[in-house]
Amino acid sequence: ARKLTIIAGPCQLESRQHGLEVASELRAISDRLDIGLIYKTSFDKANRTSVNSQRGMGLEASLPVFAEIRESIGLPVLTDIHTAEHAAIAAQAVDVLQIPAFLCRQTDLLVAAAQTGKVINVKKGQFLAPWDMKNVLEKIAGAGNPNVMACERGVSFGYNTLVSDMRSLPIMASFGAPVVFDATHSVQQPGGQGATSGGQREFVPTLARAAVAIGVAAVFMETHPDPDNAPSDGPNMVPLHEFEGLLKTLLEFDAIAKRV
Amino acid sequence: ARKLTIIAGPCQLESRQHGLEVASELRAISDRLDIGLIYKTSFDKANRTSVNSQRGMGLEASLPVFAEIRESIGLPVLTDIHTAEHAAIAAQAVDVLQIPAFLCRQTDLLVAAAQTGKVINVKKGQFLAPWDMKNVLEKIAGAGNPNVMACERGVSFGYNTLVSDMRSLPIMASFGAPVVFDATHSVQQPGGQGATSGGQREFVPTLARAAVAIGVAAVFMETHPDPDNAPSDGPNMVPLHEFEGLLKTLLEFDAIAKRV
Amino acid sequence: ARKLTIIAGPCQLESRQHGLEVASELRAISDRLDIGLIYKTSFDKANRTSVNSQRGMGLEASLPVFAEIRESIGLPVLTDIHTAEHAAIAAQAVDVLQIPAFLCRQTDLLVAAAQTGKVINVKKGQFLAPWDMKNVLEKIAGAGNPNVMACERGVSFGYNTLVSDMRSLPIMASFGAPVVFDATHSVQQPGGQGATSGGQREFVPTLARAAVAIGVAAVFMETHPDPDNAPSDGPNMVPLHEFEGLLKTLLEFDAIAKRV
Amino acid sequence: ARKLTIIAGPCQLESRQHGLEVASELRAISDRLDIGLIYKTSFDKANRTSVNSQRGMGLEASLPVFAEIRESIGLPVLTDIHTAEHAAIAAQAVDVLQIPAFLCRQTDLLVAAAQTGKVINVKKGQFLAPWDMKNVLEKIAGAGNPNVMACERGVSFGYNTLVSDMRSLPIMASFGAPVVFDATHSVQQPGGQGATSGGQREFVPTLARAAVAIGVAAVFMETHPDPDNAPSDGPNMVPLHEFEGLLKTLLEFDAIAKRV
Repeated sequence: ARKLTIIAGPCQLESRQHGLEVASELRAISDRLDIGLIYKTSFDKANRTSVNSQRGMGLEASLPVFAEIRESIGLPVLTDIHTAEHAAIAAQAVDVLQIPAFLCRQTDLLVAAAQTGKVINVKKGQFLAPWDMKNVLEKIAGAGNPNVMACERGVSFGYNTLVSDMRSLPIMASFGAPVVFDATHSVQQPGGQGATSGGQREFVPTLARAAVAIGVAAVFMETHPDPDNAPSDGPNMVPLHEFEGLLKTLLEFDAIAKRV
Repeated sequence: ARKLTIIAGPCQLESRQHGLEVASELRAISDRLDIGLIYKTSFDKANRTSVNSQRGMGLEASLPVFAEIRESIGLPVLTDIHTAEHAAIAAQAVDVLQIPAFLCRQTDLLVAAAQTGKVINVKKGQFLAPWDMKNVLEKIAGAGNPNVMACERGVSFGYNTLVSDMRSLPIMASFGAPVVFDATHSVQQPGGQGATSGGQREFVPTLARAAVAIGVAAVFMETHPDPDNAPSDGPNMVPLHEFEGLLKTLLEFDAIAKRV
Repeated sequence: ARKLTIIAGPCQLESRQHGLEVASELRAISDRLDIGLIYKTSFDKANRTSVNSQRGMGLEASLPVFAEIRESIGLPVLTDIHTAEHAAIAAQAVDVLQIPAFLCRQTDLLVAAAQTGKVINVKKGQFLAPWDMKNVLEKIAGAGNPNVMACERGVSFGYNTLVSDMRSLPIMASFGAPVVFDATHSVQQPGGQGATSGGQREFVPTLARAAVAIGVAAVFMETHPDPDNAPSDGPNMVPLHEFEGLLKTLLEFDAIAKRV
Repeated sequence: ARKLTIIAGPCQLESRQHGLEVASELRAISDRLDIGLIYKTSFDKANRTSVNSQRGMGLEASLPVFAEIRESIGLPVLTDIHTAEHAAIAAQAVDVLQIPAFLCRQTDLLVAAAQTGKVINVKKGQFLAPWDMKNVLEKIAGAGNPNVMACERGVSFGYNTLVSDMRSLPIMASFGAPVVFDATHSVQQPGGQGATSGGQREFVPTLARAAVAIGVAAVFMETHPDPDNAPSDGPNMVPLHEFEGLLKTLLEFDAIAKRV
């Protein structure tokens, strides 16, 4: 199996400059560690807990920044889309289209994303069993696009809590898709702070190590230079200055996982 | 408090004739029992488990049938929408717009629905705590529409199973919205039959009686003349010939619940 | 079906006088409402969250008080046992032996309780499915005692939270045993206050009404003259002065549930 | 941190010969891998799903076999107890007393076990949060015994299913006790086969690798020469001929986990 890929970046594209700075640091890390790294960022947070939360720069304003990150920084870019209409537009400027977990059963969105021919990263809904992803993946493959990854990001466990069922990783791998483990959303506490979601950043390395030791194609982790002041997902993002150290550890486990 | 309202109809609009026949029977039942009844039917099943399942007649073809049910049968009509664009179009022909559970945090959809001025019935996501609905309701009210109902339809409980937490009903009522209990989707077993969802029709009366005894504004129940041959949600719909008997029982409990 | 029976009393036997006073008030209520009422109280809280919590009077000191409640107050008495040895001893002074939820799979305890010939009330473990109770009931019946009741008291739902799955009531009834709904432990929040369990007393009427409308043989509710100062289960017990009013409501629902 | 310890053996002591044979093979494996290995076996299965299942040899008959395994094979022995009376008796012949998960809140049992002075391995109840184990550990330490290990074996997740929340491992470690991960009971499906529990043996390596990569003091795994014909827990035990290979992999992950 191939060496671990990393999908990383700040939860949302805050500005051109912010996006480029983080991308540039991540590019340097990926060069030093000799790993594939896909830059993740969102142009719109379409399902915030509260209507008062910041949503992001929007698709139109983000497209040139996505393009610049690809061209000047040299990282492939992933972004998430929320409507079928956005699929073809976003596809012009990114390498991977991501389907949010809440939307993973919306057939039109899956098909529109698939039809762009881009790689698709589809997150498993918090309300789905691992085996339910077979139908989700088939919706995309059935639309003629075999380039689809299945991403675990936690399953509902009581209220305001997610749990990571690690059995999900081999189950989803058995459907033939590369499996991604989203270590930062898996520690989210949805709605756990009233009008925003909480998070348990301290458990990101715990869950990421577990997933890598089991064997995954990629780990997804949001990272930010200053998570406590980020406009979204701050409580669960990894501080950027801790990121390289964490990756080094993960790569040690990955080497064993892919040899044994 | 007002007497129990019923939201009922077949899961999907199968044809003009099918829609009118069921509506006509439900109208007769509502007259005999002297209750308010809102006719529910879907023009598109946008999030089927599998891409091979039937999706419905589509919005354009459904609009004249919705109009006919309102005018010739005399029942108000409710339908569910899946994109912001559909809100204003569907609003031309129905009385209530419903937000599906998976989509209850999609801000643009909630706002577009709210801006039609129609009554909104928003289903609580299977991944939400009852208190998380406060933010959902505020997204709609904040868009200038106070006519919003909160609907309980079960919460994720392990895999392929939902549970109805009856505490949800008074909690959501405390936010000021009329509370609806969806007794047929609450017994769904999502993805429980591999490529389709299963259901436990036999528990619909159980849960509906419980909810009515606690006190709710409305009960939502899908019903069909021949559930075993319905194109969707057959395993959890109530056979139409059992519907009136069930309603009579519920009304007895409702009378006490709203007196004590 | 027979009119609703009530199982009620303070969580623990605090003293002879306290026990007799509460029993006397409950006897008066049962006379006024013409219902069967079984007095519940514990001689030992054997599984407190913390070792520092009060455990109760103990079995030896409690036996004469149990006898006095039966004889001078005229109420049948129920108590819970935690070891096989206690079964025969407790059986001398009570009418119903109760098996705690955590212990519902301990075969020796079930068999020893069964062999006393007393009525057994076995609580469904927080970790059991309703259908798992079939084997539990068979352990007791197989020991020659057909007088067994199955009691729902909530199932684990994430951490520190229980949920009441109302489908459990008809499922357990299908095994032939009278079904009891424990409305006060169902709102417990196990371990939810660090070194003690929390509770949501405000939802006791909600869940009790739901269960009675579905149809149960009995409702179990702990009650106390001063719950906030009770040595155990205070957060979920019903204040004694509210008890009769709640029962009146339940009896109205019970009358309908057993007629329709 | 110290190298990984393994707790292993057949679910129940089937006979003197069977016990000695498996112990002898495990001893050889532990010598080849240079690891500490504690032999686990039960003298009584006190909480079988059904009363018709086999329970084991009993305590009296097992004591000499335990002693023989310690003396002639040279492995320390662990067994589980179900009553306070058994604590002192079993302590004569074993090195570690184990508290079953269902019984982890029974104060008298914990205290009796603690008072033997033996090492205690207490399993976290399927109904407990990781932080609830703080009180459980304090019951044992408060009885004067600091030698206690905390063991994760899955938490209730819907019906007939457990999930392993890997965050539990660092949370329990923060209370100061060595943490054990029980990889074979974590894949149990309690009651999942009607009158017996099912299991998913294929996920034992998955979960064990995850736990070891996070960092644990010990892994607990039941193993058997012929699991499909074992009298209990067959569906989740590891075949003995696969055991050494699995341990080799775990030790590779352990080496990294305890260095980084």
